[in-house]
Parts: sequence; structure tokens; C-alpha cells
Amino acid sequence: MDLYEALYTTRAMRRVRPDPVPEDVVRSMLDAAIRAPSGGNSQNWRFVVVTAAETRQRLGELYRDAFAILKETVYKDLWERARRTGDEAALRVQRSSEWLAEHAAEVPMWLLVFSRNDPTGASIYPAVWSAMLAARGHGVGTCLTTILGHFKSAEVFELLDVPSDRGWVLNAAVSVGYPLGRWGIARRRPVQEVTYQDRWGRPVPWTVDEPLYRPD
Amino acid sequence: MDLYEALYTTRAMRRVRPDPVPEDVVRSMLDAAIRAPSGGNSQNWRFVVVTAAETRQRLGELYRDAFAILKETVYKDLWERARRTGDEAALRVQRSSEWLAEHAAEVPMWLLVFSRNDPTGASIYPAVWSAMLAARGHGVGTCLTTILGHFKSAEVFELLDVPSDRGWVLNAAVSVGYPLGRWGIARRRPVQEVTYQDRWGRPVPWTVDEPLYRPD
Repeated sequence: MDLYEALYTTRAMRRVRPDPVPEDVVRSMLDAAIRAPSGGNSQNWRFVVVTAAETRQRLGELYRDAFAILKETVYKDLWERARRTGDEAALRVQRSSEWLAEHAAEVPMWLLVFSRNDPTGASIYPAVWSAMLAARGHGVGTCLTTILGHFKSAEVFELLDVPSDRGWVLNAAVSVGYPLGRWGIARRRPVQEVTYQDRWGRPVPWTVDEPLYRPD
Repeated sequence: MDLYEALYTTRAMRRVRPDPVPEDVVRSMLDAAIRAPSGGNSQNWRFVVVTAAETRQRLGELYRDAFAILKETVYKDLWERARRTGDEAALRVQRSSEWLAEHAAEVPMWLLVFSRNDPTGASIYPAVWSAMLAARGHGVGTCLTTILGHFKSAEVFELLDVPSDRGWVLNAAVSVGYPLGRWGIARRRPVQEVTYQDRWGRPVPWTVDEPLYRPD
């Protein structure tokens, strides 16, 4: 797969089929992940591939509970506003997020990502994103979620037997599966509105009016 | 460029030529960056492209100062151990890091990355990594650094006129330029040593003995 196709079309793919993710895809995701840079090449990461049905069942319950907390706190105002104003893009995200929370246990694979000594996340999220891009190359969808780490970290540590005294932090739970939906280029605020030249607020001397990559 | 070639060969490329980075590459990097996912699709990011010589001059001084602090604190024991034990891989990272600190002002472009409301970094580092991968596709090298944010944040905010009262955080300063060195696949601790199956410590039922991608 072309690099730019992957960079432009790896959207959050929350709705996935229950079919298992082939071992070759899992290996490819993880071998890509560990090629990512980390501060001082520390590679202070661990990955747990969750496919066992009973573990996914419990993880799914935790995910659903974490999502309920998210809806009542961080996203409360945001989502109410979207409903009020009829912001269709935001409502689509809401609906697919609800779908994932309802079906979390049926997602065939979750990739749980842990790191330590990385308070900013600079040394772990490139690896996470590489795993997601590698999956995309095999036609496999992913969604990067952080709510288990935010709201159910202790429960996940217990479920997966993660040692609690060695500094590990749960950075991400990535859902993985063959997509029900279609790949496509996500709409974004245009790049010239979020990019400055040499100092804050000074416009860049160029624009990007259409995504620079377009699928055939 | 092939996706996997980019994922496997985008190493920290600290030694770069002073030649300017073409505008098309800059646009491609940033347009790729904004396609990355962010929590709730918040896109709470800003990018400052620094190419002006006097801004780079000052930024280079700040980078060198930040690097001196890093060497005396976080990396002190680590690097002394590498010298003592003759760990050649670690010593190579040291030497190229020293090179970047000495030549920071001559790097033709720095991409400064800011975000807000993202304490974990989950919503900004995928975008940063996408920009770096997009650069790789054009043969342009990058290195993700975080020391300016750690040690010289106030000075960078002042230099670039970044408003200090709106919650922005400096997540990364990415050096950008045509490489002096060669692309290659970084050695890593094998994936089966950092990946578990279904619970912490349980081995995965597969190994990856050689990188799954090999350049021709």
C-alpha cells in the first residue's frame, strides 16, 4: 500500500466484524510498532494482544463502563451541543463511539499498550500509530481509545495481571478488526488555518485547498 | 513510497544538510499530519514552521541549552554507562544527538508542534509521526525532540509569540532536512519480547526473527 493512502485514509474504524484478525496481521502491526522512535531509543513499551473470548468479555464491560463515565463528564457538553446544533459530523462520531461501547466485547482483538518513563506520550504514540497504519495496509481497521487508561486502569491491570509496582502506564486500547464501513479521507480543518510561519499567528505562504492525496 | 518501507526506515535522522525543504514537502507533511486521529476529532493542534534564519538561530541556542540540561540530568547515568560499557548503538545515538545540538541553527526547518487539552499526548503524537512519515516519503529526514518543551518552553513561547494564557503546550520540535546519512532499519528488541498474549507475561504464539519488511 502507498504510504500516503495509509496516512490519509486510516480513520477511526470503530464498527468492525467479529472475524478474527489473522496472525500475520498481528505480527505486522507489532513489528511495525517497535520500529517507531522512542526517546533515547528506550523502547520502554509492552503490548498485550487480547483475543481470548472471556478476557474480551470482561474488557468489553470495562470499556462500556469507562465510556459511560466519558459521556457524563468530558464529552457531556460537547455531545449535547452537537445534538442541539445538529452537527452531523460530530453526531456520526457519537453514533460510532456508542456502537463500539456496545460491541466492545465482540471486537475480535484489542491491542493494549503500556509504557513507562514517558510522561508526555512522545515515546509511545508513534508506535501505536505505526501499528494502526500497518493494520490499514492489510485492510484491517483500528480505533485508538484512551478511556480505559483514564477511568479503568486499576481494573485492567488486575484483569491482565499487569504488575502495579514497576511504573507501567496503560496508554491505549486499540480496537482491531475488519471494517464494516468504508475507508475514506476524513474532513479536517484546513491545514493553513492551524499552521503558522516562523511565529504564532503569521500565515503560511501557501494553502492546501483539497487533500493532497486522493484515492483513485 | 510503500507504507511498510516508511514505517520501517523512518529513523531519527539528526544529521541533515542545510538545503531548504521545498514547499511541496512542507505542505505534504502538514496535510498528512492533520489527517491523523485526535480524541473526539478535536484537532486541537497548531504547527509553526520555522525557516527564518534569525528565528532558527535563537531556537538553535535554546535547543543547545536544553540539550546541555538533558545531558546533566535525565541522560547522565544512561550515557555514562554507555561510555563505560562501550555500547556502540547507544554511543551512536549520543554522537548524532550531540551533532544535532551543535548544528540546530543550521537545520533548515524546524516544525514546532503545540496542542491543548491533551494531557496524555494521544491526540498529538500520531499527527507528529504522520508528518515525519510523510517527509520520509519525499526523502526528507526528521527527528522528534521534546527537550525544548521540557526545559525551554517559556523561552520558545516568547520567541514565537505563542499566547501563554490559552492552554497551549509545546509537544515537539521536529528537525527537518535532507539527510546526510542513509535510511535503514533500526535494530530493536524483538517484538516477541515486548508482546504478551491475553495477559501480562504470557508469550505470544509466534515470533518475528527478522524484520518483516526488508528494502530491496
